[in-house]
Amino acid sequence: MDLFYVLLILLVTTRAFGELAERVGQPSLVGELIAGITLGAGIAEFPDTFPDLINLAENEVFVSVTDLGMFFLMLFAGLEMQPHKVIQHSAGALVVAIGGMVVPLALGVGLGWMFLPHTDNRVAQCLFIGTALAITAVPATVRILMDLGKLETTVGQTIVSAAVFDDIFSLLLLAWLTGLIAVGEPPIGIDIALLLGKTVLFFVVTGIVGLYLFPWGGRLMRHLKAQELEISAMLVGAFAFAVLAEMLGLHFIVGAFVAGLYFGRKTINAKSYERVKTTMSAMTFGFLAPIFFASIGLSLNLGALSGAPLFVGLLVLLAFLGKVVGAGGAARLFGFSTRESATIGIGMSPRGAVELVIAGIALKAGLFENGGAPSPIVENLFSAVVIMAVVTTVISPIILQRAFSRQGTDNK
Amino acid sequence: MDLFYVLLILLVTTRAFGELAERVGQPSLVGELIAGITLGAGIAEFPDTFPDLINLAENEVFVSVTDLGMFFLMLFAGLEMQPHKVIQHSAGALVVAIGGMVVPLALGVGLGWMFLPHTDNRVAQCLFIGTALAITAVPATVRILMDLGKLETTVGQTIVSAAVFDDIFSLLLLAWLTGLIAVGEPPIGIDIALLLGKTVLFFVVTGIVGLYLFPWGGRLMRHLKAQELEISAMLVGAFAFAVLAEMLGLHFIVGAFVAGLYFGRKTINAKSYERVKTTMSAMTFGFLAPIFFASIGLSLNLGALSGAPLFVGLLVLLAFLGKVVGAGGAARLFGFSTRESATIGIGMSPRGAVELVIAGIALKAGLFENGGAPSPIVENLFSAVVIMAVVTTVISPIILQRAFSRQGTDNK
Repeated sequence: MDLFYVLLILLVTTRAFGELAERVGQPSLVGELIAGITLGAGIAEFPDTFPDLINLAENEVFVSVTDLGMFFLMLFAGLEMQPHKVIQHSAGALVVAIGGMVVPLALGVGLGWMFLPHTDNRVAQCLFIGTALAITAVPATVRILMDLGKLETTVGQTIVSAAVFDDIFSLLLLAWLTGLIAVGEPPIGIDIALLLGKTVLFFVVTGIVGLYLFPWGGRLMRHLKAQELEISAMLVGAFAFAVLAEMLGLHFIVGAFVAGLYFGRKTINAKSYERVKTTMSAMTFGFLAPIFFASIGLSLNLGALSGAPLFVGLLVLLAFLGKVVGAGGAARLFGFSTRESATIGIGMSPRGAVELVIAGIALKAGLFENGGAPSPIVENLFSAVVIMAVVTTVISPIILQRAFSRQGTDNK
Repeated sequence: MDLFYVLLILLVTTRAFGELAERVGQPSLVGELIAGITLGAGIAEFPDTFPDLINLAENEVFVSVTDLGMFFLMLFAGLEMQPHKVIQHSAGALVVAIGGMVVPLALGVGLGWMFLPHTDNRVAQCLFIGTALAITAVPATVRILMDLGKLETTVGQTIVSAAVFDDIFSLLLLAWLTGLIAVGEPPIGIDIALLLGKTVLFFVVTGIVGLYLFPWGGRLMRHLKAQELEISAMLVGAFAFAVLAEMLGLHFIVGAFVAGLYFGRKTINAKSYERVKTTMSAMTFGFLAPIFFASIGLSLNLGALSGAPLFVGLLVLLAFLGKVVGAGGAARLFGFSTRESATIGIGMSPRGAVELVIAGIALKAGLFENGGAPSPIVENLFSAVVIMAVVTTVISPIILQRAFSRQGTDNK
């Protein structure tokens, strides 16, 4: 793969489609996803014309670039948000996250139970569908709220915090699911307790480092001479938190986000902070994020549409319904207005990021092998989940755009 | 390899050593190279402690990151320089480049002729040593001049332009050399003429695009709505020029540099231009360039020091002598003062970047196989060239720092 060629094609296409999306009143993200889908369709049609663009998802270099894209996006989201506001909204977010996990999980398991043939893998497959519906894609959610300028509203903060909680819960689910696939039985309570303990440890360590070491580093930097140290310092903090998150069984995006949260206006002087934000915004929205979202669009494989159309349709429907009823319902109970609750439900609906990672893990673990009984559903399960992930990520911002422009009461 | 872990370790180490270098009055670059050398020595001593850091030079993902580092560095150098000044100094630069190629080439071939045993590979090996001495590492040279704040002086502009010419000439040499290795005979005139024709084509196409399409794109962008389009536009231009350069047999850094040259203050409005420069400076000096220079230091293998100490000593000596006499002598003839000429000679001396690529190509082509006659020189030739590349890159900025601080007459 010639990296520069791939980056050239993807950057031109995503930025052009992003501009078109803005022209018709949609967030750029929608354009970038559609750019990826269009390129994917073009490559499938004329594989000889784009040899460098085939199987990008399996190319280690390209995956690293999209990982960097997720990393920059989450770090920038953390930078934009204020920790005290995140904590202030954390009770509501926790309730929303739990509601937004449990309902889709149950719907997914139920859907699987109805459609899947009786095999040894059936329980694990049902649980996989449930997990696939329970997930929320934090990077996609963050980007949508940024595109709409709603990240710092109460609804926006609740959505992002709930999505981060969701991300952590989904790792618990994934651990449970992979245990089930590997040994045929779900892991016992002690494994779950261990993962929970590691999660707590992560937040304690990052909290101490963020509250005490970051400001100390900021004061130290005033006495240093090397140029462009501020951005290095922030990246070092974020890389360290990302590595720690991975060591403790969490996804690296949680580490990047938390590092951004702690790296605040008070860590370094105001002028340097603005320079860092300018740089991060340009690199994220002008370079890495479009490449990342194009990669989600590129992963779309429409095979399941002809093989199991009813199942795919129901899966997409339940993807929205589960989050609107589960997360939105929990938000309504917590005191948000009906319109705000629906907005939160839709805001939690995008699946395209972590979903593709988890579907990949399940694929490698042999979850989609059928043990003799031929079933169009099982054969198309992977493709169906990818369709659901991409469709929810494309449609959610379009609905949210309307929802936010109508209410307009929440611009605090 | 866990990319975030590797980036964390390299970024912390390079920035710390860079700060130490500044403290003792040296450019950051020297510290970054020494950070790489130190890490390399640490890894060799305790391989089990750093499993992720072993053989980074062979890791495709890491090489892509360092390629991006070279790309950003050359693009930023182009941005900083003004095309009319580059053209103004191009006659002098061409003379300096030719002098700085011919003399080291002759010295290298002579050194090889003295030390190497009589085998079938001898001619090619001598020519390889000559090529290794004739090269100038543009990215290293550019970084040194930036660290010293001398990029836009007459001497600085002459060094960079001559280094770019050198880079193009060295590709001609390399084509000749690989032809010699492959078929045992140097390629005939038509191949050389073809490469020259492609080089001319590259500059004609980039000239037309840079002079007409870039300003048109700048005017178009005023009417577009998507955010952070300026940096995307610049990256698209630079990726396109890099891909074109590779298609026409040139190194991608030439494309990145030329794109930066044409993307000037007048292409987009002044405020956006400053934002782009802020971003490029932060990403280059705060993130990607230190990683790239650490990778040069990491590649150091001291094996040849014990196996062929005299040869290594002479090689390093001739590396400086060849450029000071060749490039410096040509500069003196062209009208620079003696001190300025010596400065230009030293400024052309760093080899660490393209050198390592070329040594790698020669290694893969089987140039260091000896055909029966055991020779400590041939066995250590690869390692000797790498030592020469790293030593010239570390020492040149230290000498240049003194040279520039003494003259101080050339700060135009």
